[in-house]
Amino acid sequence: MGQYAAPLRDMQFVLHELLNVEAEVKGMPKHADLDADTINQVLEEAGKFCSEVLFPLNQSGDREGCTYEGDGVVRTPKGFKEAYQQYVEAGWPALGCDPEYGGQGLPAFVNNALYEMLNSANQAWTMYPGLSHGAYECLHAHGTPEQQRIYLPKLVAGVWTGTMCLTEPHCGTDLGILRTKAEPNVDGSFAITGTKIFISSGEHDLSENIIHLVLARLPDAPPGTKGISLFVVPKFIPTEAGEPGERNGIKCGSIEHKMGIHANSTCVMNLDNAKGWLVGEPNRGLQAMFVMMNAARLGVGMQSLGLTEVAYQNSLVYAKERLQMRSLTGPKAPEKAADPIIVHPDVRRILLTQKAYAEGARAFSYWSAMQIDKELSHGDEAVRKEAADLVALLTPILKAFLSDNAFECTNHAMQVFGGHGFIAEWGMEQYVRDARINMIYEGTNAVQSLDLLGRKVLADMGAKLRKFGKLVTDFVEAEGVKPEMQEFVNPLADIGDKVQKLTMEIGMKAMQNQDEVGAAAVPYLRTVGHLVFSYFWARMARIALDKQASGDPFYKSKLATARFYFAKLLPETAATIRQARAGAKSLMEIEEALF
Amino acid sequence: MGQYAAPLRDMQFVLHELLNVEAEVKGMPKHADLDADTINQVLEEAGKFCSEVLFPLNQSGDREGCTYEGDGVVRTPKGFKEAYQQYVEAGWPALGCDPEYGGQGLPAFVNNALYEMLNSANQAWTMYPGLSHGAYECLHAHGTPEQQRIYLPKLVAGVWTGTMCLTEPHCGTDLGILRTKAEPNVDGSFAITGTKIFISSGEHDLSENIIHLVLARLPDAPPGTKGISLFVVPKFIPTEAGEPGERNGIKCGSIEHKMGIHANSTCVMNLDNAKGWLVGEPNRGLQAMFVMMNAARLGVGMQSLGLTEVAYQNSLVYAKERLQMRSLTGPKAPEKAADPIIVHPDVRRILLTQKAYAEGARAFSYWSAMQIDKELSHGDEAVRKEAADLVALLTPILKAFLSDNAFECTNHAMQVFGGHGFIAEWGMEQYVRDARINMIYEGTNAVQSLDLLGRKVLADMGAKLRKFGKLVTDFVEAEGVKPEMQEFVNPLADIGDKVQKLTMEIGMKAMQNQDEVGAAAVPYLRTVGHLVFSYFWARMARIALDKQASGDPFYKSKLATARFYFAKLLPETAATIRQARAGAKSLMEIEEALF
Repeated sequence: MGQYAAPLRDMQFVLHELLNVEAEVKGMPKHADLDADTINQVLEEAGKFCSEVLFPLNQSGDREGCTYEGDGVVRTPKGFKEAYQQYVEAGWPALGCDPEYGGQGLPAFVNNALYEMLNSANQAWTMYPGLSHGAYECLHAHGTPEQQRIYLPKLVAGVWTGTMCLTEPHCGTDLGILRTKAEPNVDGSFAITGTKIFISSGEHDLSENIIHLVLARLPDAPPGTKGISLFVVPKFIPTEAGEPGERNGIKCGSIEHKMGIHANSTCVMNLDNAKGWLVGEPNRGLQAMFVMMNAARLGVGMQSLGLTEVAYQNSLVYAKERLQMRSLTGPKAPEKAADPIIVHPDVRRILLTQKAYAEGARAFSYWSAMQIDKELSHGDEAVRKEAADLVALLTPILKAFLSDNAFECTNHAMQVFGGHGFIAEWGMEQYVRDARINMIYEGTNAVQSLDLLGRKVLADMGAKLRKFGKLVTDFVEAEGVKPEMQEFVNPLADIGDKVQKLTMEIGMKAMQNQDEVGAAAVPYLRTVGHLVFSYFWARMARIALDKQASGDPFYKSKLATARFYFAKLLPETAATIRQARAGAKSLMEIEEALF
Repeated sequence: MGQYAAPLRDMQFVLHELLNVEAEVKGMPKHADLDADTINQVLEEAGKFCSEVLFPLNQSGDREGCTYEGDGVVRTPKGFKEAYQQYVEAGWPALGCDPEYGGQGLPAFVNNALYEMLNSANQAWTMYPGLSHGAYECLHAHGTPEQQRIYLPKLVAGVWTGTMCLTEPHCGTDLGILRTKAEPNVDGSFAITGTKIFISSGEHDLSENIIHLVLARLPDAPPGTKGISLFVVPKFIPTEAGEPGERNGIKCGSIEHKMGIHANSTCVMNLDNAKGWLVGEPNRGLQAMFVMMNAARLGVGMQSLGLTEVAYQNSLVYAKERLQMRSLTGPKAPEKAADPIIVHPDVRRILLTQKAYAEGARAFSYWSAMQIDKELSHGDEAVRKEAADLVALLTPILKAFLSDNAFECTNHAMQVFGGHGFIAEWGMEQYVRDARINMIYEGTNAVQSLDLLGRKVLADMGAKLRKFGKLVTDFVEAEGVKPEMQEFVNPLADIGDKVQKLTMEIGMKAMQNQDEVGAAAVPYLRTVGHLVFSYFWARMARIALDKQASGDPFYKSKLATARFYFAKLLPETAATIRQARAGAKSLMEIEEALF
């Protein structure tokens, strides 16, 4: 049941028409030769793999789920292993990796586009290679040369996979209180003991080895987050020749039964004197792990975009086929027993909500990936610094705004199907269940909001936010004088002003009372998310206006979607700004006993 | 895992302090003798049954689900049959039923309070007696004396259960195109043939007979909704003595696998020359069925309140126990490894959202039930008419606003648990899955919105809305002069004015273009929902102000919750009013091919 076709036209629009990536990579020496044709070929090939191999396993994977077979063994659903084998043979794990370790060296924006499609096709499956790529990035940034020599080629090839082991039964958000211990061995390794929970892809049958990145405490570690170190703990300890050797003391104790992503194993991992090696400096494990956590947060953004897109595609087909009631303005399909439900204004509202959020997310997330490429590879240090600041600012928005929207949109898609949406057969309820985790893991959306408002905005007195604000005001100045752009530029300028004012107001209040930050954070993030989307929708509208004379209906559609965004979605900020301004008093004055 | 205790104090507050039911029933001859003590005893007993018998079956019932055993036989989860037996033996099915047929004759507001508790404890189980009560009401209103003699005592006793069979594979919302046929038999009965789907409680092992109320077409029926008739189709045809006799040709063909309410059987019902008897007049079946559908819509409101309440109770306990991070304003539990998460402003925000929506829903729904009692039983015809209008106006709001809020709130409750919320073990994800159906069945929330704006408001030029508006303006006039009430009365008056203005504006636009109704309906319903909640929160604040000197912390809590409602939840209307005003253009201008 259901369908997925990679939205190649829109992906190419974002990459080539909105972002001009072919021109942008000229400033990045290691990507300078990349051309549009190569990118398009990669996307097309990946799209085929996603539609033909991964998508057909999505629903069956959900139904079957993973199986804990006892003694640490986990079996993935039927077909998962074969699909992973094909993925590896086609070289997809290497796409965005360093050529020094066998990678293809493509920029992050291409890899992110790949992940959008993988996630549309099968989020639970994609978490296996997705976490591996995060482990690759972490070891690539912080591993010793020896660790890089041993692990990176295997991770790049995809024959080994990776995980991140942070959470423990008593701590998730609050890593400062974690208890897993690492005792030094005489050979320079560490003996690690403790229990980790909620470890995605922690155990499975897809790869010959699993490389765990584990947070633990050294014996002399100071308390809190400044006493956490990072270790690489392989399931099988690599031999000198780099092949899987002795079985290590890290073992899956059970897997969780959960609301969604049934086909990804969520493992309890027991470490009993497991052998691990320090990654990065002692007691600075959180800093090293942040590379992986930031990658994972962008990854959640791509999961959310992927689900939004596939749910939209399916609900659109249904809305055109399902006949129910007549249009209030008279029959539109008089030859049929009833009109297709796409004639009804509210069905259009929830379809266009999905479309506008999917396309806005694509523009924002591909642009963000390009900023990561600039941060890592641009020839000019000032550009690198600027890009790094923008990425730091926008990562929590990418994670939280996109996953909130994906949950809203998969629910809209389900609602288009009515009662049929609630039935497993049609596959829509799975999207809702899968999308739900994205608001929780890799830092709940409330934690992202605090990260944005507290750490990224207020801590540097709004300096990073002003960098994004500069992009907005530059665009407003350039386009604000043009009559055809008024309908887009005016609301963009308006929300820009409001965000600035709101930020200052909260900043002032926070100096009196830090709880004002926590009270405002969630509606603040949604407000800034809309500023970001307004900016990208205005830019996309500019291009569509320029090109609509071509007669290509794509631009007409883009323009109509932009208009819908400003008319119906941006007004959410009228509420979120008020909620953010309403402050902490009504939250904090009620004593705990009175709840 | 988990817990539920009937919120007796708040239920009693609503019934006795807000609604003064003991005084109100004096105007209803058949309830005039009912006193507060009796009501409280009933609620207390029911609360025990819910906590002790039904609640422990909720999670196990979800896990096991119903089983289709072949040949039309459905088995409910372990313990369901025994619990139903206890329910019947205690006489609960009879609580709100006519004494002429063995009922206890209590008012709807008591029965609704019972249903809140049943649904908190176990929504899937409650749907078996819930639909039976709907069938009772339909036959009580429209059955022939003979039908009433045969069926009502059995339904009142609970030894037989009931269903409503409306939906067919090609039609849900659009009953006008239904195809099930009813051919007259010589004995005055009809031979009914067709397929019905999504029939909740359609087959099970709880009762000795199942009474289906089936919509079908007579041979000479006009097309559309004016050609639909209602039939009573028993699983076993009653003998003269009123006992189950011959097996009828209505049989369950399969049950659906679905997102939630796993323990309620959602059946495909095949009718093959099933014997049925006409209920009400030929071709006026929809009118007769509306009694049941309206009861079902109020029932969905009670399901939604029930889930909101139980999810709140559980997330509150977790928020007080779970230690994670320190308060931004300094440690609150310095003796512990971290502070309980209830110290964090955003956790309080999502807890208070649940609390304010639960308590607002309780006030609104019990008050609505009391209007139903007035409509049915008041001695004064003018009062009956007034109450009937208010019930007609508010039923779609009760269904849609409460179920939207319940989905939001169960998701908030899940979010309080973080990753643990996504795991089946804790039970929170079940509430989200169960709550989701409430937005779909008995008319999707978009259909409710159209019913409100199109049929209940615009069709009578706002006459019914003005009746509710009169309650608001009377309260505003009486209380608006009192300084201590300003903070509640001012925003109430403001949202009242805005609803009036918005209604007129949409009405004007709709005269030009009927699609304006469909475009505005959903945000319009949410706006009016907040007007209703503002009214009840202001009234509850009045009582709390009057009684706070008593020192009872209940009133302090009520007042704080009212303040939270006005500060943080009512502002949603800033967005919904804009969205409603934004009109149809951005929805309708995009051609179907451009989606």
